[in-house]
Amino acid sequence: MAVYTEVTDEELAGFLSRYDIGEPLSFKGIAEGVENTNYLLHTTTGHFILTLYEKRVAVGDLPFFLGLLDHLAARGVSCPQPVHARDGAVLGTLAGRPAAVVTFLDGIWPRRPTAEHCAGVGSVLARLHRATEGFALTRRNALGADAWAPLFALSRDRADEVQPGLAAEIERELGRLAAGWPRDLPTGVIHADLFPDNVFFLDDRLSGIIDFYFACNDALAYDLAICLNAWCFEPDGAFNVTKARALLSAYRRERPLSTAEIEALPMLARGGAMRFLLTRLHDWLRVPPGALVVPKDPREYLNKLRFHAGVPTVAAYGLDP
Amino acid sequence: MAVYTEVTDEELAGFLSRYDIGEPLSFKGIAEGVENTNYLLHTTTGHFILTLYEKRVAVGDLPFFLGLLDHLAARGVSCPQPVHARDGAVLGTLAGRPAAVVTFLDGIWPRRPTAEHCAGVGSVLARLHRATEGFALTRRNALGADAWAPLFALSRDRADEVQPGLAAEIERELGRLAAGWPRDLPTGVIHADLFPDNVFFLDDRLSGIIDFYFACNDALAYDLAICLNAWCFEPDGAFNVTKARALLSAYRRERPLSTAEIEALPMLARGGAMRFLLTRLHDWLRVPPGALVVPKDPREYLNKLRFHAGVPTVAAYGLDP
Repeated sequence: MAVYTEVTDEELAGFLSRYDIGEPLSFKGIAEGVENTNYLLHTTTGHFILTLYEKRVAVGDLPFFLGLLDHLAARGVSCPQPVHARDGAVLGTLAGRPAAVVTFLDGIWPRRPTAEHCAGVGSVLARLHRATEGFALTRRNALGADAWAPLFALSRDRADEVQPGLAAEIERELGRLAAGWPRDLPTGVIHADLFPDNVFFLDDRLSGIIDFYFACNDALAYDLAICLNAWCFEPDGAFNVTKARALLSAYRRERPLSTAEIEALPMLARGGAMRFLLTRLHDWLRVPPGALVVPKDPREYLNKLRFHAGVPTVAAYGLDP
Repeated sequence: MAVYTEVTDEELAGFLSRYDIGEPLSFKGIAEGVENTNYLLHTTTGHFILTLYEKRVAVGDLPFFLGLLDHLAARGVSCPQPVHARDGAVLGTLAGRPAAVVTFLDGIWPRRPTAEHCAGVGSVLARLHRATEGFALTRRNALGADAWAPLFALSRDRADEVQPGLAAEIERELGRLAAGWPRDLPTGVIHADLFPDNVFFLDDRLSGIIDFYFACNDALAYDLAICLNAWCFEPDGAFNVTKARALLSAYRRERPLSTAEIEALPMLARGGAMRFLLTRLHDWLRVPPGALVVPKDPREYLNKLRFHAGVPTVAAYGLDP
């Protein structure tokens, strides 16, 4: 559910006067997106998304995010394209907040992903990784492997409220991740949050990807591991090897994986599961009583973590070991 | 903030297969609207609003609401127009809820209404009242004058938490309303909730009105009194007689007011203020601690009620007494 910053008609008119995108015809808040306030903006020239950046996004990161969209769009990756004001700027101020306009992307995110959707995701992720080569800006992964222990420290004392023994299990697993985390894999700009609600399809063909607000520099194969977790488990918790094979094969057709990357996949997937387990645990323990928005259950990612911890070889992902 | 019912792509495709509106291109939840879940739906033939009716709306009322939109659209009142499925139905089922598709209305609601906006509202309200003549269905005003005492009973014990003495003041005022409430005014179908966020403008010209989910049968002039409250007070609580005059004059050009209606305006406006004071008081006392959505302050309507209670003649509204 969107944080919702109200914009007056005068403020909107003043903001849009800096752009060559016509007169506003409609302006509606979108319920999707928890980090920022998003408006669907219809003007005499087309449809756009107008985003007001709320305080959870660091203003200093915005040139990285918006520059990345410009870079990707110029290289043929279908993503929202920042609209430049007449003075060239992509970032303005609206209702006291940093704000930007991007093009509207048609498509619907798959509520029940199929193997075909997974293949589309694998393919676009590889093309994304290739297209980010040469992007000049960098951004540290604030939720990367080095952040997990400090992040866990915020929830350790109350973790067992979610499930008895959870604190000890995370502690043990953090130790194993610290010992086994691969540090020499090829790196680059990763999306880091390519969940189904960030991938649009039309008639089962991928039409574009959105929400780059976790993008950062990290191991490329770690992005793939995040996708394995986000796309290849069934609602009942079972891992679907057919979907994993579809995702990984499609990726490798666009960007070959090194032996080191393939061998690292189980550990990367454990780490990816840990990252989402920890942020969900944090949010779960801090939900205001009676809040309308129920946070996502951290145990979903505990289940995924345990699965990857038990994987004997990458054959479990449909790959030849 | 919208209640948010998730719809799968398969459910959406199945639902839309009953209509002749093309294939879905985009499907986004809208943040506006607290009673229902609203999606903005873009298809190969145009833009629509798809509404899922949540439990606060009585299913039995939906034929009245949707029939009213059909009736009004056929008579040239710009409002969302229900899209009929191939079998003629305007109401279907989606994700286990009653659901309907209506046409998308361009326009932006005025965050800071001007006297020009008020004139537009007066004019459209009168045309609405004339256009509803002949509409066959009726709906009792569940929040009408007879409902205020029972509604207050739900909050009486805690009303003084909002402001000391509030319970006694409401009690006294309910007595005066019961004694002085006009019962013989012309009735018809009223909108009953024509606040600024339900009225769209393009370039200061009214482009349409939405959200008929409080529409019901009651005194036509009571609808006008609700608009006086919703449109003619400034953010600091001051009544703006210029806006009231603009609203009332524009209304009378389209539908003349009888002497009885004019003389009843102060009492109708007190009643209208009481109705919103009571529903806001109810919601204010029941907000879950820590909830993201802050309910509207009931004291805004206490201030409006006191203003109308002190009005000596209708000259206070810019009318000749």
